[in-house]
Amino acid sequence: MHKLVLIRHGQSEWNLENRFTGWTDVDLTEQGVREAVDGARLLKEEGFTFDVAHTSLLKRAIRTLWLVQDELDLMWLPVFKTWRLNERHYGALQGLNKAETAQKYGDEQVFVWRRSFDTPPPELEPDDGRFPGNDPRYADLAPGELPRCESLKLTIDRTMPYWFDAVAPQVRAGRKVLIVAHGNSLRGLVKFLDNMSDEAITKLNIPTGLPLVYELNDDLTPIRHYYLGDQEAAAKAAEAVANQAKGG
Amino acid sequence: MHKLVLIRHGQSEWNLENRFTGWTDVDLTEQGVREAVDGARLLKEEGFTFDVAHTSLLKRAIRTLWLVQDELDLMWLPVFKTWRLNERHYGALQGLNKAETAQKYGDEQVFVWRRSFDTPPPELEPDDGRFPGNDPRYADLAPGELPRCESLKLTIDRTMPYWFDAVAPQVRAGRKVLIVAHGNSLRGLVKFLDNMSDEAITKLNIPTGLPLVYELNDDLTPIRHYYLGDQEAAAKAAEAVANQAKGG
Repeated sequence: MHKLVLIRHGQSEWNLENRFTGWTDVDLTEQGVREAVDGARLLKEEGFTFDVAHTSLLKRAIRTLWLVQDELDLMWLPVFKTWRLNERHYGALQGLNKAETAQKYGDEQVFVWRRSFDTPPPELEPDDGRFPGNDPRYADLAPGELPRCESLKLTIDRTMPYWFDAVAPQVRAGRKVLIVAHGNSLRGLVKFLDNMSDEAITKLNIPTGLPLVYELNDDLTPIRHYYLGDQEAAAKAAEAVANQAKGG
Repeated sequence: MHKLVLIRHGQSEWNLENRFTGWTDVDLTEQGVREAVDGARLLKEEGFTFDVAHTSLLKRAIRTLWLVQDELDLMWLPVFKTWRLNERHYGALQGLNKAETAQKYGDEQVFVWRRSFDTPPPELEPDDGRFPGNDPRYADLAPGELPRCESLKLTIDRTMPYWFDAVAPQVRAGRKVLIVAHGNSLRGLVKFLDNMSDEAITKLNIPTGLPLVYELNDDLTPIRHYYLGDQEAAAKAAEAVANQAKGG
């Protein structure tokens, strides 16, 4: 039996400001830091340890991982960082306040951009300062690979090759793997592992900072999954994420 | 012309307690943290940036690197961690107070263990709790590769393959490389780059926290090297390290 742990990073500065974040590289808030440390303590209490970790190229996920490594005394862990675990790219909406965007485009349009499976938000133009084409962290990507906006579907499409090529072989080989990433890249993994429908995955809210443990068979089909810690707290945390989504 | 930057981690808890550290995984002190941040600021002021970083499996080096990455806004940097950049393994002396060790074995013997090029300290027995054989971070090493004690020569012998196999190809390919490591693993790199004698390298004291910049030709022979920041401060820092060595 294999175990895999997923953690969604805690509150970021733009969660707090209610702005569309996407690939914008904002940091954790103090609350986000606390969520990461609390999650790490749950892992520690349950005796979890790891052989390798994967995260995105965005500092809110990387800092969450660093806090977990520090708390578990695993700073030496090999860590792989990839754009394929980045948050969904929110295109031309990145940086905009969610309430203002709803006023401008209407609640219904914003709801579709945020909650439909395959409708991408408006594209970023390549000459937009927010376009990631000149960011050295993405220098190794082919120009066509760089997203200018992503639906949840497109996010999942570029996340899953990393699961198949990089993560799954490690899990299969018996390595204890930790993945620290974002709401939508983690949705991709969860959708695949639990064989969820397009509709169901748009409604799944993964709570922030709470370790999500998958127990897997040798062929990596799931035996079960569960959140560490107080199950009621986990349910409430997921609810809070869902309400924020409705409100914003 | 290629540039390579080396940083020796700042003060650790056992530097402060004057104990032989070696592979013991002690953390930075507050002063050590400040040294790392100060070094990072010097890099920032001079406009340095990096494509990739290498460090050891010991947290005093890894934390120094994290502080530099954070200060330079380079948390996304690919980081490779290797035992080959670890500090010299101090064998059965690890954990002992340096003054007490001098009283027990005599100043002269301790001076030889600390300052000769090729005399290793007493070996750790495999059943000693300090032997790294059961530490998961070294699980991928062949049993014969794990040191039980190291002279400076042995330290350099196991550091250099990493330079040739992992680092040099990146520098040659034009990648901007940062290495954050320890006094003795860095001595190995400096000895090779500057073609120093066995005798000369035992006398070289690399100051902690100060970025050491190498400018290299395409064949990686050095054009020049220099410390960032106040040159007088750099000289004094090296002197302080040398005096600590004499005193301890």
